[in-house]
Amino acid sequence: MEQIPEPAKERLLYLMRVLEKSGGKPLTSGELETLTGWSSCTIRKDISFLGADCGSPEGANKKVGTSCGYKPERLIPAIKAALGLDRRRRFCVVGLGRLGSAYLNFRAFELGEFELAAGFDSNVNRVEILKSPVPLYPAYKINEVVGRFAIEIALLCVPGEAAQGSAEKLAAAGIRGILNFAPVVLSLPPEIAVRNVYVTDELRALAVKISF
Amino acid sequence: MEQIPEPAKERLLYLMRVLEKSGGKPLTSGELETLTGWSSCTIRKDISFLGADCGSPEGANKKVGTSCGYKPERLIPAIKAALGLDRRRRFCVVGLGRLGSAYLNFRAFELGEFELAAGFDSNVNRVEILKSPVPLYPAYKINEVVGRFAIEIALLCVPGEAAQGSAEKLAAAGIRGILNFAPVVLSLPPEIAVRNVYVTDELRALAVKISF
Repeated sequence: MEQIPEPAKERLLYLMRVLEKSGGKPLTSGELETLTGWSSCTIRKDISFLGADCGSPEGANKKVGTSCGYKPERLIPAIKAALGLDRRRRFCVVGLGRLGSAYLNFRAFELGEFELAAGFDSNVNRVEILKSPVPLYPAYKINEVVGRFAIEIALLCVPGEAAQGSAEKLAAAGIRGILNFAPVVLSLPPEIAVRNVYVTDELRALAVKISF
Repeated sequence: MEQIPEPAKERLLYLMRVLEKSGGKPLTSGELETLTGWSSCTIRKDISFLGADCGSPEGANKKVGTSCGYKPERLIPAIKAALGLDRRRRFCVVGLGRLGSAYLNFRAFELGEFELAAGFDSNVNRVEILKSPVPLYPAYKINEVVGRFAIEIALLCVPGEAAQGSAEKLAAAGIRGILNFAPVVLSLPPEIAVRNVYVTDELRALAVKISF
């Protein structure tokens, strides 16, 4: 398959979300334009990366003046396959304070695309008494457990001062991506993908929106 | 002041973060180019929106062949002022389960730009027993308390099925922005700014990065 450029990947990911929320009804590229804010030309170009099956559905009915739109049930699986989201990935939660234990119990993970496989905390006592839907381990077992269960992604929920150390342990254990909730910038080898969820940054972005 | 376009605002916000992490040392537009991934031309254009004081510092020393760079101590306050981040804003946490109570105690809020003013939960018992650095109220007091303390932003941490109802209560109480952690799309009047923090979307974005 043709290599998809990064910005197109990001748009396809967002488009998939829009389609998932469309309730299954077909959407024309004009409707997608309104929902996404991108030009229908950009949308058609992005979808063209997915292969022939999903392309330009409007053309087919041009003669009768109707437009049948893109069918979510065809487009969603095609996007998932193209973006590598068509197989289940295991993840773990590292740091089981309030935030980490919240994510241990987050129901949205039941969607099936991601499987919570384990939780870790440096406090052995906490690991023993915390109620959890998945097995919990002391942090010194990260290396063993990440490898054994082929865990690919970690939600890093430790305090800021512990984040770099925990991230390095995860990297050494073979983790491939870290979703970092600690308010620090992690310094890791380039092959480890990192996304930061900084609440202060989100608050700032909101504040900018309401300032004008 | 000239109206700053939305994409420039987003870049300036990010630039402010980069400068805050630079440890106070001046950065040339070339260094900013490396740190942000934007062209130095874009960076200079964005900074030009801030007014004369911050513009093109390299020009001054061209003759001696050195480049003194942008001074964070001048640029950061200028960006804050231009983006409306130069006054403290009050926010509240709505929904005091694990996630909400984690954010009640989040130390990064001590930065000073944002002031946590109150927490709310529909469970009166939880409101009474939870330890918190700020006053907690039953949810039926949202209207009164948001008005009384001039709270502008809410962190919405309620379960998905309660999110729309809580958001409407907050909107009616005069809230201006909502940071939504519930995995649902809120439907609100356009004057209410919303930012969504969807962990599943973040996991997906990570999965896309590690697929290739």
